[in-house]
Amino acid sequence: MEVITSLQNARVKKWTALHTKKGRDETGLFLVEGEHLIQEALKAGILETLITDSDNPFEFENVIQVTPEIMKKISQNVSAVHLIGVCRQKEQKTGMISRVILLDGVQDPGNLGTMIRTAVSFGFDAVYCSDDTCDLYNDKVIRSTQGALFHIPVIRGSLPGIIEDLRKDDFRIIATTLEHSKTMSEIENTGKLGFVFGNEGKGVRKEIQLDADERLRIEMEGFESLNVAVAAGIVMYHYQRKS
Amino acid sequence: MEVITSLQNARVKKWTALHTKKGRDETGLFLVEGEHLIQEALKAGILETLITDSDNPFEFENVIQVTPEIMKKISQNVSAVHLIGVCRQKEQKTGMISRVILLDGVQDPGNLGTMIRTAVSFGFDAVYCSDDTCDLYNDKVIRSTQGALFHIPVIRGSLPGIIEDLRKDDFRIIATTLEHSKTMSEIENTGKLGFVFGNEGKGVRKEIQLDADERLRIEMEGFESLNVAVAAGIVMYHYQRKS
Repeated sequence: MEVITSLQNARVKKWTALHTKKGRDETGLFLVEGEHLIQEALKAGILETLITDSDNPFEFENVIQVTPEIMKKISQNVSAVHLIGVCRQKEQKTGMISRVILLDGVQDPGNLGTMIRTAVSFGFDAVYCSDDTCDLYNDKVIRSTQGALFHIPVIRGSLPGIIEDLRKDDFRIIATTLEHSKTMSEIENTGKLGFVFGNEGKGVRKEIQLDADERLRIEMEGFESLNVAVAAGIVMYHYQRKS
Repeated sequence: MEVITSLQNARVKKWTALHTKKGRDETGLFLVEGEHLIQEALKAGILETLITDSDNPFEFENVIQVTPEIMKKISQNVSAVHLIGVCRQKEQKTGMISRVILLDGVQDPGNLGTMIRTAVSFGFDAVYCSDDTCDLYNDKVIRSTQGALFHIPVIRGSLPGIIEDLRKDDFRIIATTLEHSKTMSEIENTGKLGFVFGNEGKGVRKEIQLDADERLRIEMEGFESLNVAVAAGIVMYHYQRKS
C-alpha cells in the first residue's frame, strides 16, 4: 500500500483541487466521504482511489494511506473522516429514454440531491440541469442522493437547447407552475415526458413556462407552496412509466 | 420606541435564552429572523416584539431598537440580520380533525420543516412529533416551513400515547414501511387517517409498525429509497380529504 505523509505531495494537491468545480471539470473526478457513499461508488464501478488514515473496510486494491493531517486537508467535512474515495464522473450518455426531469436554476444542494434520488427511485432516465443549477458534485448534493447519483445520467447544459433536442426525440415538455396550468388528472401519462421544475424562489423561468407543451400544477388546499423536491416527488410518482 | 444599548440588559439575556429548547419551553416564546418569516408571524398574529438595529418595515408597534452588537448576540445566523421577531408559540389545541401525520424520530430540521409545510398545503389538521424528533423551533426548521409553522398545530409527545388517543377518536393508524405493506391503491382514502413517518435512517419503530392498523408503501422501481419528506409529500397528496 502506498503511503503519503507530506502535505506538499502533488497528489494531495490534486485531490484538494477537487473541492472546486474547475478542478472536478478538468479531471472528471470528484470526492465522496464516508463508508456508505464509498460503498455505493464501489458498487457503481466508479471508485478510482481510496484514501484512508485508518483501515480499509472494502475489498478494493487501490488504497493510499495518509496521515490524519492530510485527511483533514482533503476532507470537506468539519468532523474527522477516515475514508475518502476519489471517483470518476459517469459518462453522461443517454440511450432510449422516455421520462426525464429538467431543473431550472435549483439552488439548494439538498433539493438537487433529493430530486436525483427520487428520479432513480421512480425509474426516470435522466436529470437535466440548467447551467445555473447548483454544482452536482457538491458534498451536500452527493450526500442527499444517498448513492443514487451513481445510477442515473445527470446532464448540465442550457435548457432551451436541451428542450429542443428532447422535442426532436418526440418528448412533450411539461413545466410545473401555478399559472394557466392543468392538474395531473388532466395531463395523460403517455408518450415521452419531460418535467421542468424551477428555482426555489422564482419557479420555472417565464420563457420556458410559455414555450412548454403543457403547464402542470399539483392540486392542493389554500397554502399554495410546496418545497420543489416534494413537488418533484409527487409528479414523478404520478408519472412513473406504466408497467 | 424603546432603545437598548447594553449587552447586559435583562431582556437581551431573556431573548438569547430562547436559543435553547429549555428557554423556549419555559417562556412559550421563540425567535424568527428575517423579513419574510416575521411577516408570516405577523399575519398569523403571533408576533410579540420586533427587535431591530435599523428600520421597521412593518406596521407593528412593539418595536425595540438595539445596537448591531446586541443584534449579533440575539441572532442565530452567521451573517448579519437586521430584524428579529419574538413570537408566541401557538396554543396547541385541536378541534375536529380527520387527517394527521405522526413523525417518529425525524432528525433533519429541513425534513421536519418541509413536512409541516406540505401538511398545511394539503389541508392536514395536525403534526404530531415523537419526543426524539428534532426541536420544532430550531431556526432551520422554521426556515424550511416557509411560514407554514404558524398555520397548523404541531404537538410533541410520546407516540404510543398519541396513537391511543387518536384511536379513541376513530382514527386508523397507517405506518409507512416497506415490510408487509400495502400500496396506496389498496388502502382507501376514507374516515380519519393518521400516517406515521419514521427516522431518516431507521424508519418507523418496529413496535409502531406492528401496532398500526395498516402498513403502507409507495410503489416504485428498483432503488427503494425516498427522502422521508418526499415520501410524506406523496402520501399526503394522495390522501388529501376529498372535497
